[in-house]
Amino acid sequence: MRLEYFNGRLFMHIEIFGYLAAICTTLSFLPQVIKMFKEKKGDGISTPMYVIFVLGVLMWLIYGIMLESIPIILANSITLLLSGSILVMKLKYD
Amino acid sequence: MRLEYFNGRLFMHIEIFGYLAAICTTLSFLPQVIKMFKEKKGDGISTPMYVIFVLGVLMWLIYGIMLESIPIILANSITLLLSGSILVMKLKYD
Repeated sequence: MRLEYFNGRLFMHIEIFGYLAAICTTLSFLPQVIKMFKEKKGDGISTPMYVIFVLGVLMWLIYGIMLESIPIILANSITLLLSGSILVMKLKYD
Repeated sequence: MRLEYFNGRLFMHIEIFGYLAAICTTLSFLPQVIKMFKEKKGDGISTPMYVIFVLGVLMWLIYGIMLESIPIILANSITLLLSGSILVMKLKYD
């Protein structure tokens, strides 16, 4: 299957997967934020995971800004906010 | 700043940000996997977060396969393996 064989309709179906994927991997962090905010505990959460993750998301954001890609900028701004909140709560509550 | 003004060197610098970002957001899950494997506990980890996240990564993988994009396939295969392990351990140890 190659891009040049795609017709508009098939390509739209493929793009929907990308958008759904982005929505899921972005908003998935929200239940973790709510859980930590309610429980005021950071038990079980790995600090190195969130340090590396937040750093990675920050680099995705810079990459998106350099490419002027609105979807990359939008998704990673929200992910940065959510995963950053998890890291801050982890450091605060531990 | 627009793509058509980029020379090869500048574009390479931008691509490096993308690769570093992908490496960070992919490998960040490893410390969490190791922590849970050692502690045999799922405390503090949000189940809805990992259900939605694993689903999202699976869709990124399908998206990558449909676009025949090796970087998307590679990064999301590893992320699926790591975040899937976290979800399985969470359900097992809780």
